[in-house]
Amino acid sequence: MIQPLNIVPFVSVDHMMKLIHRIGIERMLTDIAGYIEEDFRRWEIFDKTPRIASHSLEGVIELMPTSDGKLYGFKYVNGHPRNMKAGLQTVTAFGLLSEVATGYPVLLSEMTFLTALRTAAMSALAAKHLAPRQAATMAIIGNGAQSEFQALAFRALMGIETLRLYDVDPAATGKCAANLARQGFAITRCATAMEAVEGAGIVTTVTADKQYATILTDNMVGPGIHINAVGGDCPGKTEIHRDVLLRADIFVEYPPQTRIEGDIQQLPPDHPVTELWKVITGAAPGRSDARQITLFDSVGFAIEDFSALRYVHERIREAGTYAELDLIADPDDSRDLFGMLMRAAPAQAPAGVSARNDR
Amino acid sequence: MIQPLNIVPFVSVDHMMKLIHRIGIERMLTDIAGYIEEDFRRWEIFDKTPRIASHSLEGVIELMPTSDGKLYGFKYVNGHPRNMKAGLQTVTAFGLLSEVATGYPVLLSEMTFLTALRTAAMSALAAKHLAPRQAATMAIIGNGAQSEFQALAFRALMGIETLRLYDVDPAATGKCAANLARQGFAITRCATAMEAVEGAGIVTTVTADKQYATILTDNMVGPGIHINAVGGDCPGKTEIHRDVLLRADIFVEYPPQTRIEGDIQQLPPDHPVTELWKVITGAAPGRSDARQITLFDSVGFAIEDFSALRYVHERIREAGTYAELDLIADPDDSRDLFGMLMRAAPAQAPAGVSARNDR
Repeated sequence: MIQPLNIVPFVSVDHMMKLIHRIGIERMLTDIAGYIEEDFRRWEIFDKTPRIASHSLEGVIELMPTSDGKLYGFKYVNGHPRNMKAGLQTVTAFGLLSEVATGYPVLLSEMTFLTALRTAAMSALAAKHLAPRQAATMAIIGNGAQSEFQALAFRALMGIETLRLYDVDPAATGKCAANLARQGFAITRCATAMEAVEGAGIVTTVTADKQYATILTDNMVGPGIHINAVGGDCPGKTEIHRDVLLRADIFVEYPPQTRIEGDIQQLPPDHPVTELWKVITGAAPGRSDARQITLFDSVGFAIEDFSALRYVHERIREAGTYAELDLIADPDDSRDLFGMLMRAAPAQAPAGVSARNDR
Repeated sequence: MIQPLNIVPFVSVDHMMKLIHRIGIERMLTDIAGYIEEDFRRWEIFDKTPRIASHSLEGVIELMPTSDGKLYGFKYVNGHPRNMKAGLQTVTAFGLLSEVATGYPVLLSEMTFLTALRTAAMSALAAKHLAPRQAATMAIIGNGAQSEFQALAFRALMGIETLRLYDVDPAATGKCAANLARQGFAITRCATAMEAVEGAGIVTTVTADKQYATILTDNMVGPGIHINAVGGDCPGKTEIHRDVLLRADIFVEYPPQTRIEGDIQQLPPDHPVTELWKVITGAAPGRSDARQITLFDSVGFAIEDFSALRYVHERIREAGTYAELDLIADPDDSRDLFGMLMRAAPAQAPAGVSARNDR
């Protein structure tokens, strides 16, 4: 630690955008995928728990903690489908890392951008292990806030340069196409989801605000493709028709969470799925057949956020993209919290006595 | 909301100390007790869950969430008994409030001081309902970081002016006695715990770093007293001898948590206890007999933190004791997070275009 322990480095939204531009977004997506891969290889040492959700009529607020025994991390994230109509983000997030040995925080960070990055990095990392090698075209169904990040991650990790875009709202597709054309992608805007999947070796579904929607039906899915199912991510929210799931080999992050939140909530609780970390370590096969349909039922797991926070924590010092937060009271005598408070009294403090933290 | 939604008010350690001095510590303890009482009266509407703990050899890191349906709150808190030897706080904390309707945070606050205040306020509130009316003297066994806050809360809510102090470490008692003498208390420093409890109508035990310690044994506890048992608060950490528990009427915050963490972890899981919120609403009796031994087995529950955060949230605007954190990415078009990022690119941003949040 460079700072005193009472000071916690804070990465604001502005800092995060500066960090992304400094590193370069595709490089950062690749780096974060590398950190996730590293953490998935040591999956078994992590303290794992399904996210802790507080549901309301309007949405859900969740805490996602995990620990590798040295660092502890958690993310606060909300999911409010109706927010978009009020001009708010459907998903916002922030997160924290702390030292397991002391419990003292070492990083507080915005995670709206960081979640977008880690979700895309996770998708592309899964595809690296599951998608057909020759895939050159990706369909993106759902062209909202996550769509561009998915495209960039798949170019960075998989070399995907050609995109077929579809959204129920043509304005969303227009926005996504304009953003990605500037990034040099070859883009086809499609009038239907059926049209979007034509010739695509990878199909990414990343829609929002749907109740048991069926974005991909059985007739749309040919042999040999990889489906990156990102949008079905909470109870009652799915994207993929059950018949597609039954034809596919399904890969998941953390089964106890995905059974509740993922597209496989439509299947019996004992339907076979493969944990992605086992594919990454080689303990389980990934794609084994050119005609096989692989499906990554992505819901987002705490370890991915941990990996992303760990990466940011290691990079902010060189980049200088953080502020210092006076978050932890740290009196000189740890038993004298009250004395620290009394010394900070405005009238009683003699000249020269700092009213800030004791150290 | 006065601020744009992407800006979250942040109460630093320095701000919190200023707020305490501005309001006055005993007034603030009384106010927070009032907020806790108000929330305990509507106990049944809260979303309740035992804290989510991540244990390690060195300590524990916990998340404590709750919600009343309008606001959601959580606290991050650690407990590391060995921290003290390294000059660190055993317990540090921070917390957050957000709007249930949108999931957007409305307050981030230090909670090391705020936890000290709410713990003391909770103790005094429980005593208001349980302690003998004529109690004028309190013993405080354990004279660490929480002890002075306990004393001030008991003076503010119960009129306690006379204290009998004991700690295994005389230096801790010296620190506590010096701090509290300046606050106008009549103080007796005691050589043993047995001596401390002599003539005390209320006995507060608030020791740290003990494994199944026995601070109060059966012969030390006479009829009619109220025991405020604060220090036994996690598995393996208790203060009160089992025989004392068996003679006392026991009051708790949230039984599923207290059965695991409180002094009653020594008792069978069906040992009768009374939930404090029922005493406060009148649904269950508190003290009913002058010779009765009442015991508040305090472990600290999420609703108390929620109440304290709610209070701080309502007071910081008038006091101006907060900073503004750029925590939530909030692009003008909620689906165009990527566009917001691209507009923040250092080389591409034309003059006059803000590189900060879009709004």
